[in-house]
Order: sequence, then C-alpha cells, then structure tokens
Amino acid sequence: MPKIVDHEERKALIAKATWNVIARDGLEGASVRSIAKEANLSLGAVRHYFNTQEELLEFAMQLVEEQVIERIMEHTKNPLPPKQIAINMLMELVPSDERVIEMQVWLEYTSYKLRKKELKDDPVYQGISLMINKLNEGGFLKEDLHIEEEIIHLHALIDGLALHILMGLVKIGKDRIQALIERELDRLFK
Amino acid sequence: MPKIVDHEERKALIAKATWNVIARDGLEGASVRSIAKEANLSLGAVRHYFNTQEELLEFAMQLVEEQVIERIMEHTKNPLPPKQIAINMLMELVPSDERVIEMQVWLEYTSYKLRKKELKDDPVYQGISLMINKLNEGGFLKEDLHIEEEIIHLHALIDGLALHILMGLVKIGKDRIQALIERELDRLFK
Repeated sequence: MPKIVDHEERKALIAKATWNVIARDGLEGASVRSIAKEANLSLGAVRHYFNTQEELLEFAMQLVEEQVIERIMEHTKNPLPPKQIAINMLMELVPSDERVIEMQVWLEYTSYKLRKKELKDDPVYQGISLMINKLNEGGFLKEDLHIEEEIIHLHALIDGLALHILMGLVKIGKDRIQALIERELDRLFK
Repeated sequence: MPKIVDHEERKALIAKATWNVIARDGLEGASVRSIAKEANLSLGAVRHYFNTQEELLEFAMQLVEEQVIERIMEHTKNPLPPKQIAINMLMELVPSDERVIEMQVWLEYTSYKLRKKELKDDPVYQGISLMINKLNEGGFLKEDLHIEEEIIHLHALIDGLALHILMGLVKIGKDRIQALIERELDRLFK
C-alpha cells in the first residue's frame, strides 16, 4: 500500500531544504538533485512537485514571503497603540538569529532576478507602503509629510539594517536597533 | 617583435570585462574563459594576470572599490562647507545610471562572500565611519549623539537607497534622494 503523503507538509520540507542549500551553496548550487539529497527524498519525489530549478526557487521564495507576512499580520491583532504595532511589524523584517536564512534567501533571489532583469515588485516595499498609507489614511501621521518619500526612506533604512545585520556589521543589540526604528516613526507620527 | 602591453591598462580592461560578465551571468558565470571572451583576449593573456576565478573576482571588486574611493576623495579637495562635502561624498555611493554596474558587482561579491562565510569588513561602512568620526572630532556634529549608532543608521539608509535604486524601486529623482540624505545630516550637524 502506498504511504499517505501530506503534500503541503512535503512541499514545505522541500522548500526548507532549498533554503539550506541556497544559504550554503548559493542559487546555482540549488539543483533539484542537491535539494532532494538535503531533504532526504528521492529525485522523483521532488520532481513530483517541482520540475525545474526555477519552480523550486520561486516556491522557496514564496514560502519565505508567506512566513514573514504571517508573522507581520499577527501584530495587527494586538490591542496596542498604532505606533507600537508599526514598530513590531517593522522589527519582523530585521533578521534575528533564526531568521537570517530568510534574509539570505531573499538576497540570493533578488540578485538572481536582478541579473536576469526579471525583478518585479518587492514584497517588503509593498508591505511598508501599505502600512504607511493605512496609518496616514487613519489620521495617525503628521499632515505635512511627503508620503511617497517617507516610504522610500523607511524602506531603505529597514532593508539597509537587515542587510548589514546579515553581513555582521551591526554590533548593537536588538533593543538599540528598535530604538533607531522608533526614532524614525517618531518623525512620522503625530 | 612582441607587442608592448600596458599591464595596468590591460588589468583594468580585464576587470571591466569581469564586471560585465558578473552583471549579466552572476559570479558563477564569471570564469576565466568567459571573461577572456568578453575582453577579446586569449585565455593565456588573461591567465598571465589571473590564475583563478577567485583572483579575478577579488581584483574586479578591488577596482570597484578604488574607483569609488577616488571619486569620494575628490570631494574633500573642494572648498565647500563640511556638510556639503559630506552630502557630495555620500551621493557617490548612490548609483546613478552609469554606476549601477559597480553596485551590482558589490551585491554579487557580497552575497558570494557571505555564503562562503568569508565576508570581512565592508569598505562602505569603513568610509562612512571614518567620515562621521572626522566630522565629530572636528566639532561639526551635535554633542549628544551616539556616534556608533548614527554611523549604523546612516550606513543603512545609504546602502538601502543604493540597493533599492538598483532594484528599480526608487521612483524619485536624484535631487529628492539628495534631500533625504541632507535631512539625515541636518539631524547630525550643529
């Protein structure tokens, strides 16, 4: 009798194996074969879900996105002041120890897509843009702001911090990083 | 009679061919063979200077660094107020059309080194750190600043902007980008 396989679970297992391979060997090393080996699955089992390296990479990146979005959206459920919710959401984009791999997958994926001139919208930009626009529409932000430029500014700061944490250049703790982000929001909030 | 070869010129030619290949095919595509083809040189001519792909990459990155540092240091010669010099220096780190390739080489090199866990100090961090410390020692900055954190903040903003320009996410002009950087410096200067 064939084993019953939970397809969603198996796809997630494969995606996580993909992240490990990307973090170690880069995108070029992430072949269907190397990922099957990492996930302890047969080549056929991986090919059942993903025929090409391209499909695998897209799925692995999509799973990073979904995870981050899920974590971010959790914060909107908390009954906290809007500024505190915004800080908590933005801190999800700053990689801590266990989340460095997400950022590394993002970096590899982004440079790959950039090289192929296939980079479309950036989910982090979209997320920050959505958040700032909602806060603005809700009347929480100062009235003389140039919203588009503030989104560019905040996005640059967050991604720059995330990249530099990944690069090991940020020698201050998470609480100090949070204080830097809070200072930016103080500039925007009423 | 053998042709007389300007070795420095030829090395620069090879480095630039390397940049083009990296921008198009990524680091993995930058073999001695593909670079020789791009530079219109024989394999032997390239091997005369660089034996391994690794040596080539290091040299290509070093040339990016030297070029950027040279452009930045030019600004220190201008008799302008310190804040204006600082803005001009920082704007050299924000890629304009013709300099996007430098940023792309930097991105590829950084993710490659990160993956191999060989990333050492970052020249942009060192440069910004040096500049801010000099301005502070010269008495130009406010006295209640936490200098180390301000360097982290400014570096994140600059690199984030540079990355997002490379990604095509920044839809504002160079003058508005400069205004964002100027606003940061206003916060630091007396």
